Amino acid sequence: MAGLVDTKSQLIARTPEYFIEKMEIDVHVNHEVVEVSPATHSVTAINHETGQQVTTTYDQLVFATGASGFRPDLPGIESDNVHDVNNLVRGEVLKNALEKDTPKSAVIIGGGYIGIEVAEALLLRGINVTLIQRHSQIMRSVDPEIGALLGKAMKAGGVTLRLGESVVGFEKASNRVTAIVTDQGTIPADFVVLGLGVRPNSAVAEKAGIPLGPKKAIKVNERQQTDLSDIWAAGDCAQCFNLVSNQHDYFSMGTIANKQGRVAGLNIGGKQAAFPGAVGTSITKFMETEVARTGLNEEQLNELGIEFAATTIEGTTKPKYYPGSTAMTVKVLAEKGSGRLLGAQIIGGEGAAKRIDTAATALHAGFTVDDMLYLDLAYAPPFSGVWEPLVIAARLARRKV
Amino acid sequence: MAGLVDTKSQLIARTPEYFIEKMEIDVHVNHEVVEVSPATHSVTAINHETGQQVTTTYDQLVFATGASGFRPDLPGIESDNVHDVNNLVRGEVLKNALEKDTPKSAVIIGGGYIGIEVAEALLLRGINVTLIQRHSQIMRSVDPEIGALLGKAMKAGGVTLRLGESVVGFEKASNRVTAIVTDQGTIPADFVVLGLGVRPNSAVAEKAGIPLGPKKAIKVNERQQTDLSDIWAAGDCAQCFNLVSNQHDYFSMGTIANKQGRVAGLNIGGKQAAFPGAVGTSITKFMETEVARTGLNEEQLNELGIEFAATTIEGTTKPKYYPGSTAMTVKVLAEKGSGRLLGAQIIGGEGAAKRIDTAATALHAGFTVDDMLYLDLAYAPPFSGVWEPLVIAARLARRKV
Repeated sequence: MAGLVDTKSQLIARTPEYFIEKMEIDVHVNHEVVEVSPATHSVTAINHETGQQVTTTYDQLVFATGASGFRPDLPGIESDNVHDVNNLVRGEVLKNALEKDTPKSAVIIGGGYIGIEVAEALLLRGINVTLIQRHSQIMRSVDPEIGALLGKAMKAGGVTLRLGESVVGFEKASNRVTAIVTDQGTIPADFVVLGLGVRPNSAVAEKAGIPLGPKKAIKVNERQQTDLSDIWAAGDCAQCFNLVSNQHDYFSMGTIANKQGRVAGLNIGGKQAAFPGAVGTSITKFMETEVARTGLNEEQLNELGIEFAATTIEGTTKPKYYPGSTAMTVKVLAEKGSGRLLGAQIIGGEGAAKRIDTAATALHAGFTVDDMLYLDLAYAPPFSGVWEPLVIAARLARRKV
Repeated sequence: MAGLVDTKSQLIARTPEYFIEKMEIDVHVNHEVVEVSPATHSVTAINHETGQQVTTTYDQLVFATGASGFRPDLPGIESDNVHDVNNLVRGEVLKNALEKDTPKSAVIIGGGYIGIEVAEALLLRGINVTLIQRHSQIMRSVDPEIGALLGKAMKAGGVTLRLGESVVGFEKASNRVTAIVTDQGTIPADFVVLGLGVRPNSAVAEKAGIPLGPKKAIKVNERQQTDLSDIWAAGDCAQCFNLVSNQHDYFSMGTIANKQGRVAGLNIGGKQAAFPGAVGTSITKFMETEVARTGLNEEQLNELGIEFAATTIEGTTKPKYYPGSTAMTVKVLAEKGSGRLLGAQIIGGEGAAKRIDTAATALHAGFTVDDMLYLDLAYAPPFSGVWEPLVIAARLARRKV
C-alpha cells in the first residue's frame, strides 16, 4: 500500500502450483467449505467458480481457516469505498482503488496494529489521514502512557486522531460512503479503511460440534488437536495457550500460526510435537517510531486479578554521544511478592522495539526481575549503552515487588 | 577517531569534580598506587605531579584498576608513532597524531575487537589500512566460518588483511618506526596502532598476596570479594564466572565491569548483592557488517572437552521482499545429549547482531535448543521474518544433538 513492495507475488510464500507440483498436495482454491461432518468424515464445499457443491472424505482434518477482520453490522459498511486489508485479495482491491480514485484524504476506523500501519502507508502516499478509535487510547495492547507516546508520534506525523469517538453509521450517495457518522458528529470521507481487529473463522467448526475456546477460537490441546482426535486446528482460527497467564488465550499472529501449523503437521505425520504456547509478543512501527509489547499489560493483569508493580523508564537506544541514538521508553511489569516478570513494553526510535525479544525470552524462562538484573546483553556504542534500558527498568521494578 | 563524537568530555561518564562535589568522594588523580599492605591496611601511591610518595589507610579496599593493552617486548614498540587506544588519554594522543601527521596509510597489529574498530575508524578518515594478525582468522572469539565472513567484509571495505603473519620487530629512524618486520617480510609503516588484547592490572594485588584467577585476574567470589575479606575487586582487573562453562573466566567488558562495580559497592555498603556471572556476550561492527557472539565457541568447547553439535544457517534480517532486508548468518552450538544451548554467533547487515541478546538470555535460562524452538519473538516485516534465523538454527541443531 505504501509502495515498498513491487509485486503481489513477493508476498505469497507458496502458490497453489507449488503445493500441487512440488509437494504433490491436491489444492482446491475458490472452494468454500460449508460443512464438516465428523460422523461421516466428510467435508462439503461450494466451488465458487462453478457454483457446484462437492463433497470429499478425510482421515485427518485440519482447520487452518484463519481469521477475518471484524465488520460491524452498520448500514453502508459494504460500500465500494469502505476497504479492509484482511487478505491479499482485499489488499489488492484497496491498492487498486487508491491508484484509481487517488483520494486526497482517508478515514481509518480502528487504532490497533492494522489502523496504525495503514495510517503510515496512506501518509506515505501523501494522503491526509484521520483515524477514529472508540477507546481513548491508540494501540490498546500497550498501557496508556505508552499508547499516548505513540499517539503523540502519530499526530506529529500528520494523522488526525479522533480518540474516544464511536462510529454509528455512514452517509451514502449511490454505492459510496460520503461521510462517517459518529457519536460526536459527521466526518466527511471518500475513502474508508477498517481496522477493527479479527475474529477466528470457526463457524464451520462450531457447526460440526467442535468445542471452541476463548473468543470463539477452536479449542485445541498442545498437539493442536481438537476435542475430536482426528480433527486438528492451527493458526488464527485456533486458540493458543498464554504462558504468562497460564490460561488459554487467543492471539492472531503469523509467527504463532506458523508454529502451530508445524506442530499439527508433525503430529498428523506420526511424530510427537507440542506447542507450549506464546507470551503475547507483538511489534509495529509508525514512521520512525517503533513499538513492541510482550506478556500481559495492566488491563489484562487487573482482569486476571494478578497483583503487580510497574516501572517505566526513559533511556536511549545507544549512548547519548553516539550518532543515531534515540529516545526509548521501556515499561516492565512484575508480580508482587514473587517478582516474576509479567510483561514489557517498548517505544522508541530505530533499533528500540526488537529488543522486546529479550523480555519475551525472559518470560519463556519464567525469570524474575532479579534474574534480569545481570543479563549479559550485548554492548558496544553503535548498538546500545552499558546498561540496557530493559535491565534498568527491571532493576527499578525490583524495589516495588 | 572516526570523528563521530565531537568532544572528549562526551565520553567521560563521571568527572573527578563530579565525584568530589556531588558525591563527596575524595578523588586523587595522577596518583599511581605502588603498594597495598593488607597487614597495616595501608595503600602507598606516587603522586605523579609532585613525585612525592603518599600513604593512606583503609577499612575496605576496592581494586578497580582495569586492564592494559598488551605491549609485546619488541624493540621500537615505544616509538612516537606506535599508538594504542587503551584509555582516553592514549586515544587522544592517537587522534592528535592523526590530525598532525595526516598519515596516508596505517598498520594495525591485532585482529580482535580493537583492531577491527580502529580499522573502520581509520578508513573513515580516508587512510589506507593494513591489518596484521598472527592467527589465520580475524576475530578469534567467533568460529572460523564467521571470522571468514567478517574478513571478507573487511577486505571488501578496503582493508589489506595479512593473516597468519607474526610481527617480530620494527625498523626505526630517529624515534619513529618506518617499517614493521614480520616472519614473512617487511611492511613500510609510518603510523602503527596496537590492538593485541588486554591484561588485567593485577600486579599490585598480586604483590599484596591477593590470590589471582584465570589470566592473572584478581580472584573474587560472587560478592566481588577477594580472599581477603576487606579487599574487593571489580571490572577488568577481576575474574568473572562463566555461566556456560561453569568455570571462572576472564572477560574485559564494560557491561560486566559496571555490574561488578555495583555489586561490590552494595556489599561494602552493607547490602547483600551477588553477581552470578556472565555468558560471554560481545558485539562489534565493521562498516555495514555487524557481528556478535555469546557463550562458548568451538575452540573453547574443544578445550573444555564438551561434546557439541553446531549448525550455521543463512537467513535475512527482514523478509526478503521488505526494503532494507540484508543477509544474516547465524550459528548455534548445543551440547550433545542434553541439547543445552552452548553458544551463538551472528554476522549480518543492519539489525542483525543485537539479536544475540535473545541467545544470551537463553543461555542465562539454561535453555536447550528444544526450548528455543517456539520462542515467541517479535515479528512484523519491518523488523524480521516469521521465523527468526536464530530459531531456525536452533531447530536444525536439534537434529544433531
